[in-house]
Amino acid sequence: MISIAAHKHDASANTLRLRRLGIDFGDEFAIFMRRDCHICRAEGFSARTRVEVTYSGRSLLATLVRVTSDLLADEEASLSAPARPHLGPSAGALVSVAHADPVESLSHVRAKIYGRSLDKSSVHEIIADIAAGRYSEVALSAFITAVAERALNQDEVFYLTEAMVSVGSRLDWGQGPIADKHSVGGLPGNRTTPIVVPIIAACGVRIPKTSSRAITSPAGTADTMEVLAPVDLSVADMRRVVEAEGGCIVWGGAVDLSPADDVLVRVERQLDLDSEGQLVASVLSKKIAAGSTHIVIDLPVGPTAKIRSAAMAKHLADVLELVAERAGLTLRVVESDGRQPVGRGVGPALEARDVLAVLQNDPQAPLSLRQRALSLAGPLLELVGIVGRGEGLARAEEVLRSGQAWKKFQAICASQGGMRAPPIADIRHAIVAQRRGVVANIDNRLLARIAKLAGAPSAKAAGIDVHVELGDRIEKSQPLYTIHAETRGELAYALEFLARQGDIFAVEEGP
Amino acid sequence: MISIAAHKHDASANTLRLRRLGIDFGDEFAIFMRRDCHICRAEGFSARTRVEVTYSGRSLLATLVRVTSDLLADEEASLSAPARPHLGPSAGALVSVAHADPVESLSHVRAKIYGRSLDKSSVHEIIADIAAGRYSEVALSAFITAVAERALNQDEVFYLTEAMVSVGSRLDWGQGPIADKHSVGGLPGNRTTPIVVPIIAACGVRIPKTSSRAITSPAGTADTMEVLAPVDLSVADMRRVVEAEGGCIVWGGAVDLSPADDVLVRVERQLDLDSEGQLVASVLSKKIAAGSTHIVIDLPVGPTAKIRSAAMAKHLADVLELVAERAGLTLRVVESDGRQPVGRGVGPALEARDVLAVLQNDPQAPLSLRQRALSLAGPLLELVGIVGRGEGLARAEEVLRSGQAWKKFQAICASQGGMRAPPIADIRHAIVAQRRGVVANIDNRLLARIAKLAGAPSAKAAGIDVHVELGDRIEKSQPLYTIHAETRGELAYALEFLARQGDIFAVEEGP
Repeated sequence: MISIAAHKHDASANTLRLRRLGIDFGDEFAIFMRRDCHICRAEGFSARTRVEVTYSGRSLLATLVRVTSDLLADEEASLSAPARPHLGPSAGALVSVAHADPVESLSHVRAKIYGRSLDKSSVHEIIADIAAGRYSEVALSAFITAVAERALNQDEVFYLTEAMVSVGSRLDWGQGPIADKHSVGGLPGNRTTPIVVPIIAACGVRIPKTSSRAITSPAGTADTMEVLAPVDLSVADMRRVVEAEGGCIVWGGAVDLSPADDVLVRVERQLDLDSEGQLVASVLSKKIAAGSTHIVIDLPVGPTAKIRSAAMAKHLADVLELVAERAGLTLRVVESDGRQPVGRGVGPALEARDVLAVLQNDPQAPLSLRQRALSLAGPLLELVGIVGRGEGLARAEEVLRSGQAWKKFQAICASQGGMRAPPIADIRHAIVAQRRGVVANIDNRLLARIAKLAGAPSAKAAGIDVHVELGDRIEKSQPLYTIHAETRGELAYALEFLARQGDIFAVEEGP
Repeated sequence: MISIAAHKHDASANTLRLRRLGIDFGDEFAIFMRRDCHICRAEGFSARTRVEVTYSGRSLLATLVRVTSDLLADEEASLSAPARPHLGPSAGALVSVAHADPVESLSHVRAKIYGRSLDKSSVHEIIADIAAGRYSEVALSAFITAVAERALNQDEVFYLTEAMVSVGSRLDWGQGPIADKHSVGGLPGNRTTPIVVPIIAACGVRIPKTSSRAITSPAGTADTMEVLAPVDLSVADMRRVVEAEGGCIVWGGAVDLSPADDVLVRVERQLDLDSEGQLVASVLSKKIAAGSTHIVIDLPVGPTAKIRSAAMAKHLADVLELVAERAGLTLRVVESDGRQPVGRGVGPALEARDVLAVLQNDPQAPLSLRQRALSLAGPLLELVGIVGRGEGLARAEEVLRSGQAWKKFQAICASQGGMRAPPIADIRHAIVAQRRGVVANIDNRLLARIAKLAGAPSAKAAGIDVHVELGDRIEKSQPLYTIHAETRGELAYALEFLARQGDIFAVEEGP
């Protein structure tokens, strides 16, 4: 028999007192501890060890960052900001730190890497661990890589969708259809949501829309909408707006609809990896969590859009429709032209200006934005059964033309906290054509990059105003687009980049 | 025409003064900057952005860690320790920081993830970027995942081997065969190198052996050898020892033989992913870089060893032999019994004790270690042509039995800086059998874990002394193994883990 009582290790000795250190480690959970503290020495922790941090019965996994100077005292530790709300301690609280047990669901990730399919429970275990912050960045990257492109079969995509919904909160709007729309990203200025929502709501259909802020683009729908009205609404305020007006356009970040997806998208972006299965699960899980039942998905197709070919669009549409059906959603996919920006403005205020022009039936309003919004609102009205098949577009057009949509939009803005006018940038710099000819190609990605360098989205008025479209005949020295910036320094960044990159608009000799 | 001269951005404004902050961020290159410093604001850097840091014409990519407190002053930044030697600035130097261009070779990694094969130039570009520290942890993880298990074809493994050699330094020993050996890891106590090297060197064959320290095991060969003699030799000192004695056993870490491999192995370990192609390229690139020409590879096979089945061993041996041949190496693979520890000791000093017993022909010396060392030395003598096929084992045995190997070992130790005696731990705790029967199974992984919790390898005397072997008949209360520790706390850790895990030796009723 082995008697270990005499050696029993005293777990309470493994505590450190928390204090703020003021280091922003990004989204990863991290704990800072002195390299020579009693726990690091006793446990033999090395740099970037994954450790289990426990406070008052709750625990989380964190990456260890060792401090080798006097930034921390001997009995002190510091938690990274994202870890604090998960654990709940206040400054000065005592936390205990120990070796972390291996994350069991990583064995499922390894199995997938070795070519096996994932069953339902494996997918749910993986997503639960990811949502709980138990995956390191390295482990997240391995999962993203293992499911990249078309590595997931339809079952796996469905399980992933379910699992993502199950780890977040879910909105319930009671009986009746709940409309929603989503555009698969990558197209500058594609700001149809603030037009589609009031059209649908004006027809008496509920459309409680949550949108995202920009992560790598010059503006997300929430950034653009924020120029016109507050978007940081609580779930309770969102309900109040929807009950009053039938629709809203709020920032989804406050609502915690798909926390695992937020984590995965962050790492996916770093890798710039396309993953069809992950994309489908991401889109559909957010819609299900938002309580939506009838959804139109916009797939812009073009060489510099996210969806680069008709074949890609077709395959993606099939998977979206099949998984949506299995999840009990009514969904229609609309393919659209993704070869050039939509509307004229790129950046929060410039896009908001275009949105207002369309809603107000301004004769100068960009036709491309108007048409695209109608091409999504129409099928959505058909999908929820408000009009018959083939009658949606006419109804949407009527609601827009008559001013009902504009009236509804103003009411939504008022209900969200009050409408406001978009700002205009003080600093503007026109880029002109160097030759006459026809606009043959527009690089959406470079255009977005320049708008960002000019300050968008954090500088609301910054961005690009595009003056020409594909196929336009232009003269030498005719302005192609104008860069808007709030500071001279930001304009300089954008111009410097432009000087290195060369032309964003290809002008060819016309017929 | 666009005139940008007036807006030309002044790059010299993008400088910060370096100072030490004392945060150990692990092996990743990182730069700490104030979130509100002029560069972060102007460039729009967010947490964990990859940035380019330039000093005096040299530059590197680093991960941005933002400081939100007064740990740094406004114009200050701090580089992580591993980044400093790559860039070369002293404290107080001015570095400039800018957005990093995308790492181009990541497009090859994406191509591999999407199922395409890598050509020679793609592999070389990837490895060059990895060696230069241009891959983030997330990017490294994606690469490791993309090449996991058997995802690389033979061409790709060969290119990877070549590329890994090309980015590090390479030793040149002039004409004639250079012998080497390697054991594919995972077996506690498998410390054959300090026995094989003096046997080979005593036969007049040069064997300049570089070994590793433990990373996840209770002892690496360099840790064990360090108990007996200094191993931190410079390349010049290593040459002097080899010229004098024909062989050496030094730590490879000081020699920078395969820097890209060191990076990949670190991430691979975090994922616990097996990658056959990566393993082959790792082993062979280090041998080529060390200047070796004739190599014996030991593949221990057993359920708790790295190679779990004969089929895995066969496949791995085939790839090793084919790629070695293409690289111009003479190589033989020896499969061995990986079901139980080799020798008796696990941990630096206990293993060193076993090594000495074998070299000194002590009648109590563990037979398993002696036999295994001979089974590698024999084929190696045949491979270099010192003896005919089938005659190697007898010659190796003769050199060992006659004391020539022991004499050579002492000479090598003296030449490396002086021989010393292994320490013995003060604290020892025997674990006894709870029933009589036959030892049916030994879990190598748990055994290694306990030796580490007891303090190995940093506590040199710590580890496990194993008293029984598979198949031994034992009585109830007979000691199975003894845990050695340098402190009571470490013994307590080991016993606590043991109490949770249950038995490491399975004892079954015998016939």
